[in-house]
Amino acid sequence: MTHHDLLGDPQHLWTTALEPVLEISSGDTVSFACEDAVNGRYDAVPTGGTLPPDDPGRPAYPLAGPVVVAGAQPGDVVEVEILEAAGTKGFGWTSMVPGEGLLADDFPEPYLYRWEIACDHTDLHDVARVPVRPFFGVVGVCPDTVEPLPVMPPGHFGGNLDCRDLVVGSSVFLPVQVPGARLAVGDPHAAQGDGEVCVSAIEWAARGTVRVRLHRGRTIAGPQLRTPGPLRAGLEDAGWYATTGVAPSLMTAAQDAVRAMIDHLGHAYGLDPRDAYVLCSVAVDLKISEVVDAPNWVVGAYLPLSIMR
Amino acid sequence: MTHHDLLGDPQHLWTTALEPVLEISSGDTVSFACEDAVNGRYDAVPTGGTLPPDDPGRPAYPLAGPVVVAGAQPGDVVEVEILEAAGTKGFGWTSMVPGEGLLADDFPEPYLYRWEIACDHTDLHDVARVPVRPFFGVVGVCPDTVEPLPVMPPGHFGGNLDCRDLVVGSSVFLPVQVPGARLAVGDPHAAQGDGEVCVSAIEWAARGTVRVRLHRGRTIAGPQLRTPGPLRAGLEDAGWYATTGVAPSLMTAAQDAVRAMIDHLGHAYGLDPRDAYVLCSVAVDLKISEVVDAPNWVVGAYLPLSIMR
Repeated sequence: MTHHDLLGDPQHLWTTALEPVLEISSGDTVSFACEDAVNGRYDAVPTGGTLPPDDPGRPAYPLAGPVVVAGAQPGDVVEVEILEAAGTKGFGWTSMVPGEGLLADDFPEPYLYRWEIACDHTDLHDVARVPVRPFFGVVGVCPDTVEPLPVMPPGHFGGNLDCRDLVVGSSVFLPVQVPGARLAVGDPHAAQGDGEVCVSAIEWAARGTVRVRLHRGRTIAGPQLRTPGPLRAGLEDAGWYATTGVAPSLMTAAQDAVRAMIDHLGHAYGLDPRDAYVLCSVAVDLKISEVVDAPNWVVGAYLPLSIMR
Repeated sequence: MTHHDLLGDPQHLWTTALEPVLEISSGDTVSFACEDAVNGRYDAVPTGGTLPPDDPGRPAYPLAGPVVVAGAQPGDVVEVEILEAAGTKGFGWTSMVPGEGLLADDFPEPYLYRWEIACDHTDLHDVARVPVRPFFGVVGVCPDTVEPLPVMPPGHFGGNLDCRDLVVGSSVFLPVQVPGARLAVGDPHAAQGDGEVCVSAIEWAARGTVRVRLHRGRTIAGPQLRTPGPLRAGLEDAGWYATTGVAPSLMTAAQDAVRAMIDHLGHAYGLDPRDAYVLCSVAVDLKISEVVDAPNWVVGAYLPLSIMR
């Protein structure tokens, strides 16, 4: 088992046409560093500031990879265990983008909240203190495509799963799509709620270390994961407040639940709707309470009360 | 503040035409007992046994109610705090019904698993030990309707929310729809996973006690809830194993996640698909990891590893 430091240019797309930056064996560890999902373009933007336009010289989703796992073939599984995830700058940001996010119609204007991040927490004004729980939004093997695919949509190959439970100690299991697997990791997050409703987490730049294991002949249809212990340890002691949406569509139910939570955060804590939406995106968890009592499903938006100051 | 024992015939439908069985004041407590959601019709059915047909003399969803809350008006909120929920028979059941449930197409045949329930747990064969966490699937105020509505679909008035977090110590907040609120409670569950995917929980008969408070002039769009502490205390110490579904529809993603968990429970623990589906329904939680990385959303099905023997 060997340790590797991954250097070389980041990848920005999923395609088997890229030259691998590293080849490793099962059991090896890899350390890497990643810029944030917009490649540092928002580094100088204060809360409420204007978002700079796209810059072809700084393409989005700079991922560490592709890493070839020796011997990996379709029909195998690559396990990626997260050993380290830590920010490399003292700040992060959460933005909303016109036309994107769960409540795109309610929030048509762009907005950015800049987080100053202490070692283990970061504050939303003087209203909420969000614990830092770093993870990588993107962990994927390469889909079987020469034509380049954008990183934003996840798939059966993993990729931009934005699963907040992939913190240090957890493993994700990915079904290999092409020879060598061609693993890539990126999109570092300091914290996120289940749902990532406003379209971003607390986005930051980070370094990471993973251990990669190859499991031969284990067929899975899509990504799976294992966590070593409780999901929200230290966050739950004050209980939760949850709003619900009840509707014939899970999407509508999720939207209604988040709208109700934004209302609640305004009434109970005086938060402006934009900042409430930001807080939902970085700290509120979406759960499906029931999806069988036809024709109406129930989705809950759960706020951990310990984070409210 | 007065304590009431709720007697009288159960209600089986939502309609303001029913005669109330009790009138209470804000702050009062009410004790009641409920048959299960099929009104005891499955009491004699063993695991794998034939489900008896509907019986007009034993209508489904026998609810304790309607209870009038003095002074409650539309525009108010009724809070129902759960003080007690305890089984009254030593068994429960989980069934699947043709045409119902998240994976209705995969499981076209009826099936019932009968649970023998000890004080705090119940076993799925010798494979899983499910902790008993009693709650009432139905907690609702009456919708504004004289025409009777069935109990199965929940709504903005609450009702059949099947929210597993409404255990003892939690409160649910319901927006009053008609004068007097006309509260009703029922559908007792010994345990359930978020999603209730096979269409039933561990269904049993139970008694309960609630405290009812009236909050005047507090407008909410739908049910909300508050829990006093961690949601899965004692269940998480061994961590979680999760499968995911990645798809352009939350419904498809939820279905794929549960299908993958059924496969996993078969491979890893030797469970028959029907019993795996049952276990998903009573112990596996559905979470929305992301609903913004267009066009693909991620739903996870989370199994607490501590319950696997």
